[in-house]
Amino acid sequence: MDFATIVQKRYATKQFDGKKIPEENVNQLLEMIRFAPSSFNIQPWKVVVISDQTVKEKLQPFSWNQPQITSCSHLLVFCADTDIENIIQRLEKQLVDEGAKKESIQRYLDMIRNFTKGLTPEQNVAWVQKQVYIALGNALNGAKALGFDSCPMEGFDQKGYTDTLHLPETLIPTVLCPIGYGSDQPTPKMRFAREDVFMRI
Amino acid sequence: MDFATIVQKRYATKQFDGKKIPEENVNQLLEMIRFAPSSFNIQPWKVVVISDQTVKEKLQPFSWNQPQITSCSHLLVFCADTDIENIIQRLEKQLVDEGAKKESIQRYLDMIRNFTKGLTPEQNVAWVQKQVYIALGNALNGAKALGFDSCPMEGFDQKGYTDTLHLPETLIPTVLCPIGYGSDQPTPKMRFAREDVFMRI
Repeated sequence: MDFATIVQKRYATKQFDGKKIPEENVNQLLEMIRFAPSSFNIQPWKVVVISDQTVKEKLQPFSWNQPQITSCSHLLVFCADTDIENIIQRLEKQLVDEGAKKESIQRYLDMIRNFTKGLTPEQNVAWVQKQVYIALGNALNGAKALGFDSCPMEGFDQKGYTDTLHLPETLIPTVLCPIGYGSDQPTPKMRFAREDVFMRI
Repeated sequence: MDFATIVQKRYATKQFDGKKIPEENVNQLLEMIRFAPSSFNIQPWKVVVISDQTVKEKLQPFSWNQPQITSCSHLLVFCADTDIENIIQRLEKQLVDEGAKKESIQRYLDMIRNFTKGLTPEQNVAWVQKQVYIALGNALNGAKALGFDSCPMEGFDQKGYTDTLHLPETLIPTVLCPIGYGSDQPTPKMRFAREDVFMRI
């Protein structure tokens, strides 16, 4: 399916049929997420991939009891990883292992540190969460590309998710993406006119 | 090109060759952006699409003088539209024009208003900007799908862009995406290991 078709066919699925996505396809989707771009290539995300029905049932009350949570095949919980210093150390280790030059590693890591030191904790969270939405976009388009459906969901109780999944406080549940096979029908897409959203110069 | 290949082939282009992308392809890309999903389908973005070389040259000093700004074919400036009340009114008009039921329109718009009234101005900006990053993702993948290149850029002087482009204060330049034909070569992609970014349950 070409990308233009993917963009048109993808829709926010309200009800899944409960069937499991083959493990191979789940792994293909995770690779599409893993290779999403991010600022400075910091990849500040951790995605909890939940197949266990009991866990999904525990999370449903923290998700406005929406049916997608339990009818999906896998529930992806996109968490923003706000611990940038830890990420920097992981980047450093990987770059050293890959044989990058010491000076260029240092220059790169300094650039990230210089940028992030100017951010308040709230700005840091906002910055990191924006990157997570790029990865989310890959999940939404990727699901359709692989022949299944998805639904981006912001409406959930963050604390309920953090507690149920025993997440450290540096990982912030940011957006949900249940995936599976839709048993509903997409409604026609409503979008603003071109002149409302584009300005040509 | 299938989506898995797009994700792997896309790269942050450091230098474009200056050739113009055919207008037809630019329009195809804009449609991919226009149909990006967003929270409540609010589509809180305005994308300034700059082909004019003089304007790009004026913007370069506000972009760390990076060569992509002037060597690209078109510079897309993704702005977050923070004026939610105006967006709600546009949504209402469009839904009325399309013949949606009065009660369902009201329920939908109330839902957006109920959500946004709980946000501080900073939280409103952060929320809106996250949506913009989904549209950005469609631009990055869409460019590669259409046979050209792109580069996401956060490093620019927001005020310089606002002033140069005469943007109202409700439109916040959020991220740049020059597009064109890359004249550099992609470096191998470095990504964290699966176990670093996924947690399976």
